Amino acid sequence: MSSEFGRILKISVFGQSHGRAVGVVVDGLPAGEEIDLEALQRFLDRRRPGKDGLSTARKETDIPEFLSGLEEGRTCGAPLCAVIPNADQRSRDYGGLLDKPRPGHADFTAWAKWGGKADMRGGGHFSGRLTAPLCVAGGIAKQLLARRGVFVGAHLSAVAGIPDRRFPLLPTAELFEEVAAKPFPVLDGEAGERMQTAILAAKNGLDSVGGVVECAAIGLPPGLGDPMFDGVENRLAAALFGIPAVKGVEFGEGFRGAGLRGSENNDAFRAEGGEVRTASNHAGGVLGGITTGMPLVLRAAFKPTPSIGRRQETVSLSRLENAELTVQGRHDPCVAHRAVPVVEAVTAAVLLDMLMEGNHGTF
Amino acid sequence: MSSEFGRILKISVFGQSHGRAVGVVVDGLPAGEEIDLEALQRFLDRRRPGKDGLSTARKETDIPEFLSGLEEGRTCGAPLCAVIPNADQRSRDYGGLLDKPRPGHADFTAWAKWGGKADMRGGGHFSGRLTAPLCVAGGIAKQLLARRGVFVGAHLSAVAGIPDRRFPLLPTAELFEEVAAKPFPVLDGEAGERMQTAILAAKNGLDSVGGVVECAAIGLPPGLGDPMFDGVENRLAAALFGIPAVKGVEFGEGFRGAGLRGSENNDAFRAEGGEVRTASNHAGGVLGGITTGMPLVLRAAFKPTPSIGRRQETVSLSRLENAELTVQGRHDPCVAHRAVPVVEAVTAAVLLDMLMEGNHGTF
Amino acid sequence: MSSEFGRILKISVFGQSHGRAVGVVVDGLPAGEEIDLEALQRFLDRRRPGKDGLSTARKETDIPEFLSGLEEGRTCGAPLCAVIPNADQRSRDYGGLLDKPRPGHADFTAWAKWGGKADMRGGGHFSGRLTAPLCVAGGIAKQLLARRGVFVGAHLSAVAGIPDRRFPLLPTAELFEEVAAKPFPVLDGEAGERMQTAILAAKNGLDSVGGVVECAAIGLPPGLGDPMFDGVENRLAAALFGIPAVKGVEFGEGFRGAGLRGSENNDAFRAEGGEVRTASNHAGGVLGGITTGMPLVLRAAFKPTPSIGRRQETVSLSRLENAELTVQGRHDPCVAHRAVPVVEAVTAAVLLDMLMEGNHGTF
Amino acid sequence: MSSEFGRILKISVFGQSHGRAVGVVVDGLPAGEEIDLEALQRFLDRRRPGKDGLSTARKETDIPEFLSGLEEGRTCGAPLCAVIPNADQRSRDYGGLLDKPRPGHADFTAWAKWGGKADMRGGGHFSGRLTAPLCVAGGIAKQLLARRGVFVGAHLSAVAGIPDRRFPLLPTAELFEEVAAKPFPVLDGEAGERMQTAILAAKNGLDSVGGVVECAAIGLPPGLGDPMFDGVENRLAAALFGIPAVKGVEFGEGFRGAGLRGSENNDAFRAEGGEVRTASNHAGGVLGGITTGMPLVLRAAFKPTPSIGRRQETVSLSRLENAELTVQGRHDPCVAHRAVPVVEAVTAAVLLDMLMEGNHGTF
Repeated sequence: MSSEFGRILKISVFGQSHGRAVGVVVDGLPAGEEIDLEALQRFLDRRRPGKDGLSTARKETDIPEFLSGLEEGRTCGAPLCAVIPNADQRSRDYGGLLDKPRPGHADFTAWAKWGGKADMRGGGHFSGRLTAPLCVAGGIAKQLLARRGVFVGAHLSAVAGIPDRRFPLLPTAELFEEVAAKPFPVLDGEAGERMQTAILAAKNGLDSVGGVVECAAIGLPPGLGDPMFDGVENRLAAALFGIPAVKGVEFGEGFRGAGLRGSENNDAFRAEGGEVRTASNHAGGVLGGITTGMPLVLRAAFKPTPSIGRRQETVSLSRLENAELTVQGRHDPCVAHRAVPVVEAVTAAVLLDMLMEGNHGTF
Repeated sequence: MSSEFGRILKISVFGQSHGRAVGVVVDGLPAGEEIDLEALQRFLDRRRPGKDGLSTARKETDIPEFLSGLEEGRTCGAPLCAVIPNADQRSRDYGGLLDKPRPGHADFTAWAKWGGKADMRGGGHFSGRLTAPLCVAGGIAKQLLARRGVFVGAHLSAVAGIPDRRFPLLPTAELFEEVAAKPFPVLDGEAGERMQTAILAAKNGLDSVGGVVECAAIGLPPGLGDPMFDGVENRLAAALFGIPAVKGVEFGEGFRGAGLRGSENNDAFRAEGGEVRTASNHAGGVLGGITTGMPLVLRAAFKPTPSIGRRQETVSLSRLENAELTVQGRHDPCVAHRAVPVVEAVTAAVLLDMLMEGNHGTF
Repeated sequence: MSSEFGRILKISVFGQSHGRAVGVVVDGLPAGEEIDLEALQRFLDRRRPGKDGLSTARKETDIPEFLSGLEEGRTCGAPLCAVIPNADQRSRDYGGLLDKPRPGHADFTAWAKWGGKADMRGGGHFSGRLTAPLCVAGGIAKQLLARRGVFVGAHLSAVAGIPDRRFPLLPTAELFEEVAAKPFPVLDGEAGERMQTAILAAKNGLDSVGGVVECAAIGLPPGLGDPMFDGVENRLAAALFGIPAVKGVEFGEGFRGAGLRGSENNDAFRAEGGEVRTASNHAGGVLGGITTGMPLVLRAAFKPTPSIGRRQETVSLSRLENAELTVQGRHDPCVAHRAVPVVEAVTAAVLLDMLMEGNHGTF
Repeated sequence: MSSEFGRILKISVFGQSHGRAVGVVVDGLPAGEEIDLEALQRFLDRRRPGKDGLSTARKETDIPEFLSGLEEGRTCGAPLCAVIPNADQRSRDYGGLLDKPRPGHADFTAWAKWGGKADMRGGGHFSGRLTAPLCVAGGIAKQLLARRGVFVGAHLSAVAGIPDRRFPLLPTAELFEEVAAKPFPVLDGEAGERMQTAILAAKNGLDSVGGVVECAAIGLPPGLGDPMFDGVENRLAAALFGIPAVKGVEFGEGFRGAGLRGSENNDAFRAEGGEVRTASNHAGGVLGGITTGMPLVLRAAFKPTPSIGRRQETVSLSRLENAELTVQGRHDPCVAHRAVPVVEAVTAAVLLDMLMEGNHGTF
């Protein structure tokens, strides 16, 4: 499984940070779907590095080449393969690190797994660079979902402990677009200013900060998902933990809800225009693993970037003795803001997969 | 997939709350493993209802019958099937509810999925009763893990916002046993008293509270898990969200970590006795989806029991108009304390599955 | 995976030949489906042993008990568990065999796999007895398919090298019923007489014979199945090889077609009543792994029953030296005629699963 | 699933016959494995078209480019992506065919599945061209297997009904190499001459012939595979039916065995040098889905190439009326001889996957 998720729609990611290319195979797309490559590029640009002082200085154009599955701008039923060449690989920055695993990175666990034989330059296959092909797949999924009335949007819910507003009870596609168009994707601009200040402060302190991304999907029908181990939450969580640096996933009130009373957390049902809605949405649109038809709301917690400029304690793997290292190279003082489209991408891909699988309750 | 998880070790749960029986098929167990049925029963008793005023008054003996896979107390390679008859089904308590979905329950989503044809008496297949067969599977997994030096333990990390202590950096099997032996599974007895007071207060107010379960596993080798979508976190989260009422899952610092700085959250490596350890364990024993060899630490958030005695607003599904209901029947003012062994069970089952699958990094 | 197949509709079989019971969990059935238990029993009776001199003398009533998933004769969305107790276990017949693996049986490979710790009495989990719960699942699948205009039927295509006629180009549901009602399920009664004579001759010679089952499904829409590794042939073959004693699976002309010329084997397309049909059906209703809408036709080869009354050469596993054994106990001189409903069952289950999964080509 | 197979080792194929490239992602390879690219190229050359009058005149160099997963000639733990550009795409040859499905091809079923929106130029994703990336994956698997003492070889077992000899009871790696080195891969050169004559005769008659490939694997340990639906046969068959034109798969005696008596088909066990062997190998190395340790022997039936030069009857899909067509373009009068390495490739990939997964019988 490893670098793949999905059932009907399978998304398989490949590449290493400093290899020739990263890419993705998307197997199972319906045929005849037009892909708006300009819109896709705008989506990819949202996660692209090197745009401002808040991110790594690595320069990548991130323009995918389609080797298969897309003919004259339309899907053709065959697996789609998109490749993004790695333009700016400065692997010398990381030279010599291999013996000294960087704290908080997968260097040590990759060493434990592959006996030191992994290509871990720049984080190798664990690098945030792998989120570029994920966004190709997810960006395509978003277009197909939108065509079917399902919209996915996200914002930075918190950075360095500074909270943004939450999504309103009924977010709209327009709101999603509005946030996506912002250089710093928050609902509350003032909170965004404080977050950016915190990121720059961390950067100046040769440090980093973490954050939380809140993602919502609207337009989902009720009845999607299966009970117990194959619900919307199970499948979204399994995929979302595949985004580098994610350490927590919650739906609706999530961990906060564990401190509420039932009378506060239950969502009263309402009949509205011939449909069943809920007056609040503490459930985040999911009850018993199955969609209610209300907006799906989830949050993913991103740890602070482990790459920091400070001297850190580590070990020499070859000598099994304590050592120190200072991580050179370019790195993000915060990944959460660049992760916003990535969370959208993974959420969209999972939801499209589940919609294609359908609700087999009555077949 | 629905009611199943696992790869090498497949666990498939069946039954409805008020049907004839609940049960589990465990396919893939190694052969020749002795199962200590008394120890298993003690484990099952930890989640059994009806022991005190903190839980539902439903009486169940919860003694599994083994139809296959276990011969003379040992596994025999064939799939193990264990059945627990439903002794005390008072389905009349729930009569008439079917048209009025209970807020916070899966009644409405089951209706949306199965067009009103589901057996939802007592929650049907969504009932917490399904955690009994889960504990049979997980209790067996715990025994097999212990035989291989891997121990899984859990405690109530919070109830109604009242926190317990966290597990220490290096929890021991003895600590796990000590907590498991307590009638109310907390580390800090005083916090436990306050939690129980909060539960009873909620009960008296015809209300309910939620909680958080913290679970740890010790003895895991480094190198377990695969990158991206098939890591320890992905697979544990996918299974843990299958426990009824779980709305969030986090590893290590999780959501709290999103507010830390990299210099605070990174775990420095240390060479200790020829092994690589970390000085702290903010990562919860997982980096890049792969185990570090430090204790695996996770937390699952349980929402407050949706069944509360108060009058609630809902709809009539047949007439699509607003309605009210008061949930009769027996229910738990809190499920989190009974969920402690369930989280252990699911965690143990996933870890045993992953250990059996092995670390194929170098084959 | 082991004892399970299916995606949307998961079928998980459990039990050992001489354990307490055999059974099946069917997860993913649509809700509200009436199950005609009498029709199901008639289907089960077609494979039941002990009816005549052609089969084992083992007596089993094979009446399933439904522990879950079926309420008042209808499916309810929850996994269905059916259990068939093992009434007539004469395990003493097999006593002492365990050290001397029976040629042609799984005794030796089970020993290699489970280190001698498997329960192999009567073949254990490898026994043909496991086809009883398979038929419960498949019999239910057949009822659901019939309700949707898809009919599955089979006949003995050959026994001991004696061929039956093939199914006509367009078999009908009536033909399927007609064959199913026969005590010996062939199209050509005369061929059937010769087959039965051959079976009895083998029996009298303390020997056994093999056979081939031909199965067809009508009413399938064109466009079902996915290219390459997830087509109708891949999935049917994967499941059919799970029936004990199957050593070959072919579709349409299969192995015979490998000797034909393209001009003989190609099926000309015809426009008939606004639909595309083929003038012949050498493809067996599948091109490129995807259904054509013509009848699906497959054949499964069953090896001669390995249990024969003659003295055979084997080894003592404990002493690793050559030995002899004479298999006692009851056994079938031929399994192919009893396997006819089993092939129908597995075919029906796979097809229902694929129909539920749908044709996602254009979503 | 579609264009993918495998569990631990996942192989995902992409590309269309006349698109930019075909390729493969191999996820799960152990790290540090040296890949002999010259040996791999020799293996690929065995299936490459355009070498003689027996095959299509399409010219392809079929040299894979490795975009990821291979650094300095060694696997690095990350998914390996290999791409083979399509050099010689003469799609005009196929122009105008799209409305008239070619008999025996997937044109019609692709139309039924994707509503006419598939890219079916040259067979699209169903083309035999997709076996090139399959051979990249399988050729790598063969190298890893050989390093572990497992060797896979194949030969043409029959063409146009003309049989080759069977593999001997104990084929050797040397024999496999010897056959692989032949321009026409048969054991019996005289039979090979007759086959080639038959192929050329078919070609001259604007027709085609089918064939059978026999494949064997030696060096497998006993105990590999799981009972019922997850055995060696199930998994090999599921993958082998993914090779274009395969219509039948059998193990050991297969369909021929269905005509034997048990006393003829059973393989007597023998103690030899502290190991258990069988005196014959009618089982093809598999009993109960689990390897015996004897050579694994299977056969795959390939239908005659559906592309023939003769005028054929078909329909116009747009007008739903009968029509005729003459297939232009280059095509193989027989694919079976070029399929020999493809069967090896798929067999090797499945076996490596199963070996990596291991025998969990006693864990």
